[in-house]
Amino acid sequence: MNGRLAVIGLGPGPLDLLTAEARAAVEQADALFGYGPYVDRLPVRDGQARHVSDNRAELSRAQAALMAAEAGACVAVVSGGDPGVFAMAAAVCEAVEHGPESWLNIAVTVHPGITAMLALAARIGAPLGHDFCAISLSDNLKPWPLVERRLRAAAEAGFVMALYNPISRARPWQLGAAFDLLRGVLAAETVVVFGRAVAREDERIDITTLGAADPARADMATCILIGSAETRIVQRGALSPLVYTPRSAPA
Amino acid sequence: MNGRLAVIGLGPGPLDLLTAEARAAVEQADALFGYGPYVDRLPVRDGQARHVSDNRAELSRAQAALMAAEAGACVAVVSGGDPGVFAMAAAVCEAVEHGPESWLNIAVTVHPGITAMLALAARIGAPLGHDFCAISLSDNLKPWPLVERRLRAAAEAGFVMALYNPISRARPWQLGAAFDLLRGVLAAETVVVFGRAVAREDERIDITTLGAADPARADMATCILIGSAETRIVQRGALSPLVYTPRSAPA
Repeated sequence: MNGRLAVIGLGPGPLDLLTAEARAAVEQADALFGYGPYVDRLPVRDGQARHVSDNRAELSRAQAALMAAEAGACVAVVSGGDPGVFAMAAAVCEAVEHGPESWLNIAVTVHPGITAMLALAARIGAPLGHDFCAISLSDNLKPWPLVERRLRAAAEAGFVMALYNPISRARPWQLGAAFDLLRGVLAAETVVVFGRAVAREDERIDITTLGAADPARADMATCILIGSAETRIVQRGALSPLVYTPRSAPA
Repeated sequence: MNGRLAVIGLGPGPLDLLTAEARAAVEQADALFGYGPYVDRLPVRDGQARHVSDNRAELSRAQAALMAAEAGACVAVVSGGDPGVFAMAAAVCEAVEHGPESWLNIAVTVHPGITAMLALAARIGAPLGHDFCAISLSDNLKPWPLVERRLRAAAEAGFVMALYNPISRARPWQLGAAFDLLRGVLAAETVVVFGRAVAREDERIDITTLGAADPARADMATCILIGSAETRIVQRGALSPLVYTPRSAPA
């Protein structure tokens, strides 16, 4: 008898940023699979097993979870943010497609969550209020020239950009290279926002410009927004500024 | 004394797809402002005023809400999906920037929600598992040639695309024109998904190809995903297929 597998988005961190549906799915699971810091956010429940694995072990984690589901368990794979955005849902789909045929019979459901760019955008106003794109800067799974091509295309076409996975110990230079490339296309005054650990206790948000953007301000927990030519900052005296991209765009 | 204004994302429809934070913010409000069908999703609470306005009256709705907040009320502007994605948060920021100076002192908070593309993606697998963009097809607030330029740039650079506001009575031809343009860049077998009223009772999801995509399948409540060359469909016999974009991409 098959169990089932839920891929669950935990949002940016606090439990009140989960949907009720995602929270219920976590509670129903016999076993949780996930990257340690994500699993650690969840209250411990008696009888619920926890299988913690490394950040980069996405495919093997997905396979282990599918094996447990096939054995009859109600399994949850937990993911920060939204599981469909540079996270576990694609890894589970890959594992299903390339795994044993029996895995095609495992019921897989995905519970969406608040992905990092939406959490950061909400914190500062509405920087994603117009057309935008999301790009992972990691070149572990795609060639760097492809990242560069996408950055250039998005900048030239006037998209606001959200950069995921901007930097890590193993990928120290990519964010600086991205800023350099973008400085060749966009004005130095273009709004850039670093959002680190958004909505968590150690949140740090820096609003700056492309000309002044320093890659050293980012770490693995940072999402970076690059504005379009229309993105604006509204200073508000005692209150923090609003950063937004107007709904309308010129020709 | 100033009140405050919360811009709240209601997600795709069902109340269990709101975050707990968004739900609490709705409950605390003295007055709700929003498009009728969104306000109608929310349970009625004694003493909570409801100000319903038309779909296209975003700026005047934002202004009315700011006036009520300035008068001391705790105001909620509700938005389907995420308020920062083609929704009310940018309209509120515009109203603040261009309104009376006193509005700069109104505390504005944005509560993120599950935007349509994330809800649709979760329903079918992980089509947004790699770099992607979101484009509004409405040319009410931007010139159509700009929409075309962005569609072409995104397709040529290999982004998965989520198309918002694909069609309406006043904009009947734009989606067909977008498909025609994309057929000139992408293969006819490119995966296209129509997601109408996702997660609601009248949900309808059509998985098709760019070659066969019929604009008449869409209405105002539809979000459309255009896959990249990598986006795949995994057939699963009795279960519905999984649509996903692998985490890795070739050069």
